[in-house]
Amino acid sequence: MKLASLKAGRDGKLVVVSNDLAWYADASHIAPTLQSALDDWDRVERDLRNLATDLGHDAIPKERFHEREAASPLPRAYQWADGSAYVNHVALVRQARGAELPDSFWHDPLMYQGGSDGFLAPRDPIPLADESWGCDMEAEVVVVTGDVPQGATREQALAAIRLVGLTNDVSLRNLIPGELAKGFGFFQSKPASAMSPVFVTPDALGDRWKDGKLSGALHVDYNGQPFGRADAGEDMTFDFGTLVAHAAKTRALVAGTIIGSGTVSNRDAGGGPGKPIAEGGLGYSCIAEIRMIETIQSGSPTTPFMKSGDTVRIWMEDEQHHPIFGVIEQVVNG
Amino acid sequence: MKLASLKAGRDGKLVVVSNDLAWYADASHIAPTLQSALDDWDRVERDLRNLATDLGHDAIPKERFHEREAASPLPRAYQWADGSAYVNHVALVRQARGAELPDSFWHDPLMYQGGSDGFLAPRDPIPLADESWGCDMEAEVVVVTGDVPQGATREQALAAIRLVGLTNDVSLRNLIPGELAKGFGFFQSKPASAMSPVFVTPDALGDRWKDGKLSGALHVDYNGQPFGRADAGEDMTFDFGTLVAHAAKTRALVAGTIIGSGTVSNRDAGGGPGKPIAEGGLGYSCIAEIRMIETIQSGSPTTPFMKSGDTVRIWMEDEQHHPIFGVIEQVVNG
Repeated sequence: MKLASLKAGRDGKLVVVSNDLAWYADASHIAPTLQSALDDWDRVERDLRNLATDLGHDAIPKERFHEREAASPLPRAYQWADGSAYVNHVALVRQARGAELPDSFWHDPLMYQGGSDGFLAPRDPIPLADESWGCDMEAEVVVVTGDVPQGATREQALAAIRLVGLTNDVSLRNLIPGELAKGFGFFQSKPASAMSPVFVTPDALGDRWKDGKLSGALHVDYNGQPFGRADAGEDMTFDFGTLVAHAAKTRALVAGTIIGSGTVSNRDAGGGPGKPIAEGGLGYSCIAEIRMIETIQSGSPTTPFMKSGDTVRIWMEDEQHHPIFGVIEQVVNG
Repeated sequence: MKLASLKAGRDGKLVVVSNDLAWYADASHIAPTLQSALDDWDRVERDLRNLATDLGHDAIPKERFHEREAASPLPRAYQWADGSAYVNHVALVRQARGAELPDSFWHDPLMYQGGSDGFLAPRDPIPLADESWGCDMEAEVVVVTGDVPQGATREQALAAIRLVGLTNDVSLRNLIPGELAKGFGFFQSKPASAMSPVFVTPDALGDRWKDGKLSGALHVDYNGQPFGRADAGEDMTFDFGTLVAHAAKTRALVAGTIIGSGTVSNRDAGGGPGKPIAEGGLGYSCIAEIRMIETIQSGSPTTPFMKSGDTVRIWMEDEQHHPIFGVIEQVVNG
């Protein structure tokens, strides 16, 4: 089942979307918003699935689905917590600044509490008040949970995953060092992110969803050129069950909690840092990563951060090369 | 005007509460929940104020207000961001571990993104799965904002403050060093907090609310003994206008955003660290602060963190010694 929120009010209007993303059926008679559906999932899931089946069988009125009319599936959420599950990425960050990667980073997930009060629509511009802040994209996988009790095991956490999607976790790289030096984590360096137009139930992902990981190339195009094709199922040190359980260690998580994978990042086939796509590699899911590799290789970065007018597209394709979650497509608006 | 949310569903039922907290009138015909009122404040504020006036004049049906029936005014919120505005507290943290306080800490607010997906009711026990986590209370002042645009000035931020209240920001002190060492800020070390039973509009606070600061002794009793009486209006380096503007520097804040002051902390009259109440001082708003002073004075802390069965009460009084925001009263439930 694929769900989306058409732009309407603060929380959008819930619709069920066809597998090919061409059509939708209004679901607001079952639950007006995605958050309300998640609040009451056990009661509404069957009705939503029936609606999706009817839509697939052409048995009900349907409307054309236009991704530009979609808000982020949860236009605002009660929680957004982002892991750093691709430890390869973290290792490069450390290597670039000459710092050791503690061994614990391979066993204990990194996670930060993000701002969840407003997500950009998937086709919204990225508002950037100051280019010197160092704007970067980060292409990631996200899951949305139901209610998760405090102390949930990985298996309980996996069973609580209701939906899977993608995000562009926008970061202001040049504000990060100052914030991390203060010791309280990210705040101003993490402005509003955008989510994919459509979120999908794990069962509808078939073999791509296994053991709490989503497999497949995460496509990132930057200014119209292929920039990243890393496989989200590779080099993911912590699966989503582990990430959700980490988040729930000391407190319950409310339904509608969004948990992110962190920037998807693959090692090169030879084990070293990934190569650009133009050099036969799988590229990068954020600009910071190529800058770190440039720093490691030549002492300083050469690829600049995003500036006004730059575009980024993020999507993942099925076997027929159709986007599974729709396409995040944003322009920096300075 | 004083507002509360009686326990009902996930978001409570909005009520207007009399100034003396003895009575309430159902406000759910105006807005079903406090979040919905904040979403639509310009439209509903007058109706809510009229209801409050009618309640004060005994002109409408009223019911007894029992604080134990109140949820936190926002049982779940889209954002909770906590400052550290009492830099005295931060300076003691640093001094206790022999670290310098950077001069920038007096000019640039510290703030972390907290978990907002679930707040304990003001009389709920504090669930503590493991006493070795080092459970501590933190008595703070909070404000709730309307919509705040990105880049708001301090004055715009002040004008966007809708409500003022108190919180017990529960912290798991022994999990903090490990989390801060990882560099991504607090997560597992910050379980669910509790808010005061009642939130109050700034105008109803009279002279106590001035220039974005709330004046008056913040009462903290620990296991039935006076523990803290620090004045929230003293030694607050960053007022709430500055804190809200800090939060909005790179992104807009949605209506219902809760911003905290950080642990209220006063210097001693002589300029040194505050003394316990039993020694004529104003005491402390968290256990960590007395432990830091013990460490500075004798090399190691002697006051333990909270254990199962410990109780904490947090409130602020008006001139007639009535609680302004009601009383947060919690027992640790290990």
